[in-house]
Amino acid sequence: MTILGIATSTVATLVRAVTAPDHDRDAVAERFARGTWSGIAEPGDRHATAVIEALGAETSLARLIDDHSGGLLRAAIVERGVEVDDTELAEAVARWTPRISKAAALLAFRQAARFGASLIVPGDPEWPRGLADLGPHAPNALWTRGNREALGELDRAIAIVGARAATGYGEHVAVELSAGLVDRGYAIVSGAAYGIDGAAHRAALASRGTTVAFLAGGLDRFYPAGHEALLARIVASGAVVSEVPCGVAPTKWRFLMRNRLIAASSIATVVVEAGARSGSLNTAGHAAALGRPLGAVPGPVTSSASAGCHRLLREYDAVCVTTADEVAELVPLEVEPATANAEGAAVEQVEASGRRRPADPGGTRIRLLDALSLRSARSVDRIALLSGLALDRVRAELGVLALEGAVAERGGGWVRVHEKTG
Amino acid sequence: MTILGIATSTVATLVRAVTAPDHDRDAVAERFARGTWSGIAEPGDRHATAVIEALGAETSLARLIDDHSGGLLRAAIVERGVEVDDTELAEAVARWTPRISKAAALLAFRQAARFGASLIVPGDPEWPRGLADLGPHAPNALWTRGNREALGELDRAIAIVGARAATGYGEHVAVELSAGLVDRGYAIVSGAAYGIDGAAHRAALASRGTTVAFLAGGLDRFYPAGHEALLARIVASGAVVSEVPCGVAPTKWRFLMRNRLIAASSIATVVVEAGARSGSLNTAGHAAALGRPLGAVPGPVTSSASAGCHRLLREYDAVCVTTADEVAELVPLEVEPATANAEGAAVEQVEASGRRRPADPGGTRIRLLDALSLRSARSVDRIALLSGLALDRVRAELGVLALEGAVAERGGGWVRVHEKTG
Repeated sequence: MTILGIATSTVATLVRAVTAPDHDRDAVAERFARGTWSGIAEPGDRHATAVIEALGAETSLARLIDDHSGGLLRAAIVERGVEVDDTELAEAVARWTPRISKAAALLAFRQAARFGASLIVPGDPEWPRGLADLGPHAPNALWTRGNREALGELDRAIAIVGARAATGYGEHVAVELSAGLVDRGYAIVSGAAYGIDGAAHRAALASRGTTVAFLAGGLDRFYPAGHEALLARIVASGAVVSEVPCGVAPTKWRFLMRNRLIAASSIATVVVEAGARSGSLNTAGHAAALGRPLGAVPGPVTSSASAGCHRLLREYDAVCVTTADEVAELVPLEVEPATANAEGAAVEQVEASGRRRPADPGGTRIRLLDALSLRSARSVDRIALLSGLALDRVRAELGVLALEGAVAERGGGWVRVHEKTG
Repeated sequence: MTILGIATSTVATLVRAVTAPDHDRDAVAERFARGTWSGIAEPGDRHATAVIEALGAETSLARLIDDHSGGLLRAAIVERGVEVDDTELAEAVARWTPRISKAAALLAFRQAARFGASLIVPGDPEWPRGLADLGPHAPNALWTRGNREALGELDRAIAIVGARAATGYGEHVAVELSAGLVDRGYAIVSGAAYGIDGAAHRAALASRGTTVAFLAGGLDRFYPAGHEALLARIVASGAVVSEVPCGVAPTKWRFLMRNRLIAASSIATVVVEAGARSGSLNTAGHAAALGRPLGAVPGPVTSSASAGCHRLLREYDAVCVTTADEVAELVPLEVEPATANAEGAAVEQVEASGRRRPADPGGTRIRLLDALSLRSARSVDRIALLSGLALDRVRAELGVLALEGAVAERGGGWVRVHEKTG
């Protein structure tokens, strides 16, 4: 009795070590095969996803093991009535076969068990729902350390990402946004890099929020090394996730592909600081392509660390966000009742634009107050002349303003009571 | 022989003192009446514009002088077949009549002559074309000091406005943008206020550019007083403009209405810094309402002086502008040939988003370079394994990269030649 050539009992033990215990033989085999596939196909390999979808992870991998030329795999796919592009499949098979190794598969699972990593596959309750939007580029399995439950909170997680070479300003804003969003009930997703990512994770932890870090390499060796302690703390209360198995190094390509997981697993992405060529622009690009709300934090135009954010505002229709409240507006958790607020009045003023201002048709009030002095009392005639308003109107409006305490009668004339604002 | 009750010769002398000399009797009378109207109706008074349009400035004012109740004015308008809202006209007449004064009219013209101010009316070659977009809220006359020719350059003028309480950062950016735009052939419009406005005017003057200041009060007393020297320098090479006559004080209402002239007379408006309640947001609102391109300069989210700019980005669809080039893109003076530039590549990267990257389909190149070391030579087999690429592909791509000098063969294996970028 074997699974992919390995004793079923060994596989079952390994799989049970890294996943929930109650699986039958087929489920065990499927999980083992998906975990093994995660070390064979590079992240985002849509052909791997396609063959797994067509045949299942175990069968597709078994056909590949039985025939490294890919002939059996192709035949099995065609038999299922799935169309195949022969050239593309041949190229994919040529990519995969150098990596087919029983030893590598066993090592990946053994290391995972040793580091307390779990394997999660589509259909598991913890599988991040947002990943489905990646379509053919969705991962086939995820490895995770920490609380699997934390992944359930990705439904209300906002990604805060940004430059490794962040400034004090950028880290300050990342901390403010992360802590503020945790206070408002959001979880925080990021990539555990130095700079903005680290600040976002740390502030979420400090606010006792849930935070999830997506890594580009295997979970047996945290990257960057300087964030080992931070990642250990994330494991303790949140989760650290990767789509590549233990033993796999983070490469530039895997960082780029990891970014799609950050964008897809969260409900919105905010870039806090980003140089003109920052990797976080790639994450932002994924978020935009997925139709996820995208926010960018502005900064001084004289700071190269904000150049990428300004580019997102200019070219990618990112929303300018400056506070946790504004980020929350991108994806509100609950519908709050619309209430009039202090800002309303200012909006009216901006909208004046030569049209009548709703709050002060014709500017009567401003013009009247303009015509009054704080010190010397002025007659109604004089006020009419100065304001360019009719006498009747001046008299009526002065009465209203007097009731409000804004003007007062003095010595047969009128004075303004308060300094004008604005 | 009189015009509006004043000896025609006196009027002709006054008008000639403030405008081009070759006018016949009717033109003189019309100019005199428009100048007089500018002291009777408040800026933006659409009823004044309507009666002037219906009857001409002289006739409408003469009817009003003859009958302060407005009955003759109304009859004259109706006779022309123009519809009248009786209530509104009565209100307007009640606003105007307290200000009808022969002495005031004469004083306005005499002061204008004394201060070298000109009167410009619609139809004059210098009349700013953009003002027509204000429709019924357009001014009926403008007073100007300086070079009337400078007004002809408003067709390529960009308004740079912002907070009086500007920061060093804001003034620095205002200077950079203003000087940069002058270098690119633009003129600069602003409001001569302290802070951003002053910095914009000064930088334009320093760059020997044309700059035009719109004031809210009469041109006999420059406001703010601290900018008297600056305004004198603007008069020397550019122009200072107001729609109210000499002797009229700047009031809050007139500042708000002045802002519409700044927005309408220029081809785009840029707000450099603005507090949450800054008057420059009102200018921005006018620009947006007029459909003029609107730019906002971002700044630190921790700076209240940038709060208004961020609000324009969030709520008013303002374009994020960080350099003079980006401002120029709002309203290019000439069509430049589209050329590929360094930014193009970065855009592709942002757009990768899980789709194939045009410059590097499937990430082959990145993955291959990821799999190479600078120091230790690796076999093609090993590179295929590390990169997850097929052997054939690895061989082919290594050949290309070797030609480009990015990789080299060494001891039967391959090494990377350069550090990776990005």
